Amino acid sequence: MYKAKAYAAESASSPLELTTIPRRDLTETDVQIEVLFCGICHSDLHMVRDEWGGTVYPIVPGHEIVGRVSKTGPAVTKFRTGDIVGVGCMVDSDGTCAQCNAGYENNCDNRVLTYNSPDRHSGGVTYGGYSDSVVVDERFVLRIPPNLDLAGTAPLLCAGITTYSPMRHWGVSEGKKVGVVGLGGLGHMGVKFARAFGAHVVVFTTSPHKKDHALKLGSHEVVVSSSADEMQKHANSFDFILDTVSAPHNVDAYLELLGPNGTMVLVGAPPEPLSVSAFSLIPGRRSLAGSNIGGIPETQEMLDFCGKHNITSDVEVIPVQDVNRAYERLLKSDVKYRFSIDMASLKQQEATASARVEAGAAR
Amino acid sequence: MYKAKAYAAESASSPLELTTIPRRDLTETDVQIEVLFCGICHSDLHMVRDEWGGTVYPIVPGHEIVGRVSKTGPAVTKFRTGDIVGVGCMVDSDGTCAQCNAGYENNCDNRVLTYNSPDRHSGGVTYGGYSDSVVVDERFVLRIPPNLDLAGTAPLLCAGITTYSPMRHWGVSEGKKVGVVGLGGLGHMGVKFARAFGAHVVVFTTSPHKKDHALKLGSHEVVVSSSADEMQKHANSFDFILDTVSAPHNVDAYLELLGPNGTMVLVGAPPEPLSVSAFSLIPGRRSLAGSNIGGIPETQEMLDFCGKHNITSDVEVIPVQDVNRAYERLLKSDVKYRFSIDMASLKQQEATASARVEAGAAR
Repeated sequence: MYKAKAYAAESASSPLELTTIPRRDLTETDVQIEVLFCGICHSDLHMVRDEWGGTVYPIVPGHEIVGRVSKTGPAVTKFRTGDIVGVGCMVDSDGTCAQCNAGYENNCDNRVLTYNSPDRHSGGVTYGGYSDSVVVDERFVLRIPPNLDLAGTAPLLCAGITTYSPMRHWGVSEGKKVGVVGLGGLGHMGVKFARAFGAHVVVFTTSPHKKDHALKLGSHEVVVSSSADEMQKHANSFDFILDTVSAPHNVDAYLELLGPNGTMVLVGAPPEPLSVSAFSLIPGRRSLAGSNIGGIPETQEMLDFCGKHNITSDVEVIPVQDVNRAYERLLKSDVKYRFSIDMASLKQQEATASARVEAGAAR
Repeated sequence: MYKAKAYAAESASSPLELTTIPRRDLTETDVQIEVLFCGICHSDLHMVRDEWGGTVYPIVPGHEIVGRVSKTGPAVTKFRTGDIVGVGCMVDSDGTCAQCNAGYENNCDNRVLTYNSPDRHSGGVTYGGYSDSVVVDERFVLRIPPNLDLAGTAPLLCAGITTYSPMRHWGVSEGKKVGVVGLGGLGHMGVKFARAFGAHVVVFTTSPHKKDHALKLGSHEVVVSSSADEMQKHANSFDFILDTVSAPHNVDAYLELLGPNGTMVLVGAPPEPLSVSAFSLIPGRRSLAGSNIGGIPETQEMLDFCGKHNITSDVEVIPVQDVNRAYERLLKSDVKYRFSIDMASLKQQEATASARVEAGAAR
């Protein structure tokens, strides 16, 4: 066990503050990573404030991690000290079930999330990437293509795979018409991927002032969703719609824009139930689906694809000391399009909060 | 133009009564069919009573038609006088769009339904199969395998294809676990097809007394959906669920039974919007889809499959004079599992209601 610096929250109403946390000593197959950048995902905020329930405190969020390998266990074969690597939303799974065997660790019943999940090694909970160091089994460590900007690469580990995976699964490609609902952290990645896959891309937004941004990101068209006329022009025409909105919204209005065999996929998660008319789904054999990150092989494929097409997230780089302010701005969608924490800022800060977290780790 | 006998309703509150209707003279590619049996679909009742809006009166319902070819147009190549044939929910489409070319006439924007749809030949509306005779373009006429019981074959033309098509599309086959929600006209066909495809079949019903019926139809297991315990045992395990229920019901409770990549398909059409939680769809990449009959090539495939596996609908054969009573029983689900009208009963009845419908046809 060694001590790492981290930003943690002590309760649902506490800010994130500097502390030290225990990290496990390396197992045979573990990789120790010096964190360079960590993206801020909206889930971090939900979890820190216990908005989905089940948060164990103290919590160290962060599952969009890019870093440099600082040490490897003796049985590690895929990585060497100095390699630039990534870690996403998962750090473990049973490795034996049908889903793991198929490369869908994200569907494994025994998957372990990067933070706030029971850690079978330490007996405590996992701590995320708002830290100077993480220890992760090599099965869950990803290679980062050398040409990518690292600050913009961090969000690929969650926002990237969350949008890439359903597009690949449902065959987004040249000749397809693809909609992206919402233009935030997920939506802007959806636009970039759909465009890179060769699809015709239409962004739906409630904010007319986002039109220029959407076009700059690669969208061919922008529809202001509050205009029934604009929406009607696209009726029955989409092959695929990526819905990134996590606030309540009219799902039927988008389902009716799907052509025959079209699919709309929810990757945002509105807390309230959605209202869905059977008559929106039955004509033309339409589908409403959900999708949840992606498996490890698929995440590596996504990163390699990003390397090839030079795709990263548009980020605003912040020091870790600004994280609480960043959360407030996130709530107002005041970021284009993802915050990426530069962890060099953490190195320079003295730990004030001793090892009070250690007790929590032993739970 | 010639006169045919038919059962028609004059208004949303009128019973179906004997009348005569005009049928068009045969075009080059038309087939004239002496109707032998016509199934009663729940849509017939909705349309007769204008419960979905848009009904044009008088209406002659019926889109589960089995009959004998009595005459053919000079360019007809697929059928000869005396052939036993079927007609389902559609009698025309543009034949030129991408959907028609792919064999999905059911998704053609210009498809013409078997009744209550504008008829480009007569200028009026189409009249359905509660009649002694219909005239249909040969493109929409299907061959009936010789071994099938004709009364039980009629419902295959709607209830059959409606359940067969999504099962084929979503790959129901040996080794798959398939649920069927509701055990009526659609549900009982779903059980027969799922079983014939080699799947493990589980029927969900609200009525414990239907257990024996479900097992007799071929279901391997029956779950009483009001029992949370029984439901919980099947969590996260289904590949495919066919939802045939057209009354309000808890869709999330079934979505949570789907395993990874599982799909639930609505073929019943509850008039009220469904409440769907994003959290029921996102884990395991689940889908909620709709499906609407099937194309003509697929309908022929379904009939041939039924011939090979000797599958027909379980029917209660009634004379056409009992049709209004049958509608009342349908509302109470008091039929196992479909009414099939024996049109010989129509031949024996004198038309009392002259040709008052003819004016309507000219609209």
